[in-house]
Amino acid sequence: MSYMKIAIDEACKGIRNGEGGPFGAVIVKDGEIIGKGHNRVLADHDPTMHGEVAAIRNACSNIGSHSLKGCTLYTTAYPCPMCMSAALWAGIERIVYGCTVDDTADIGFKDNVFYDAIRSGDAIPLECEDREGCLELFNEYNSLRAQRY
Amino acid sequence: MSYMKIAIDEACKGIRNGEGGPFGAVIVKDGEIIGKGHNRVLADHDPTMHGEVAAIRNACSNIGSHSLKGCTLYTTAYPCPMCMSAALWAGIERIVYGCTVDDTADIGFKDNVFYDAIRSGDAIPLECEDREGCLELFNEYNSLRAQRY
Repeated sequence: MSYMKIAIDEACKGIRNGEGGPFGAVIVKDGEIIGKGHNRVLADHDPTMHGEVAAIRNACSNIGSHSLKGCTLYTTAYPCPMCMSAALWAGIERIVYGCTVDDTADIGFKDNVFYDAIRSGDAIPLECEDREGCLELFNEYNSLRAQRY
Repeated sequence: MSYMKIAIDEACKGIRNGEGGPFGAVIVKDGEIIGKGHNRVLADHDPTMHGEVAAIRNACSNIGSHSLKGCTLYTTAYPCPMCMSAALWAGIERIVYGCTVDDTADIGFKDNVFYDAIRSGDAIPLECEDREGCLELFNEYNSLRAQRY
């Protein structure tokens, strides 16, 4: 069975149980599946538990590392900006997706709206406060890191 | 104590224990703290466990909902695109941050690189596969949803 079919099966389990949207994902390294997951936003009351995030967390937990260098992510739909960024942080090197952002919009999910918001920088009203206090924190982090490594 | 000072304290705990970067966050609703968290990428082997994601997950777990409508997110640094998108999915309405994206780049984190990657659409090599199979999944989801709601 293809990796994409396995991702579809993951998503199917989720939607039949009412756990969330039709999004499943599989992480593959050197031809081996090291993690998988599906959308559990409704089941877990967790807006971050998209299929890709679930699969990334599962793979990282399985290998005991926060790095997925050399891995491919298979996902039933083009990743939203949260999942795309999660893949970047994980060091994923290739993404294979099924449905497009427009297909996902057609079933009522806002990935296209959120991509526009992130690209325009006009996502959520923001203000800066106590930068000095936070820079002190950053300085302490730098000192601790220098001692440790 | 200000909400930002509480976010800084959260981050301090994390860096002193070697759990991850200097990023802490607090979620406030109607003047009350409903969730907080800090970066635990190293401790949890989880590249998605940024301070903001940790705080969002904690708040949602505490209130038993995936929606944080009406909430403000306080964070020690301008959110990376993953955390900004997580805030969008959660429905957070206001963000107060301490350090800037450039400050965060100065201590070695790639938020600025990843914002550029997301904005240019040139993040990770992508390819489309089995869109038809995934559209079938989307159709099943639509049918199930129509039956349930």
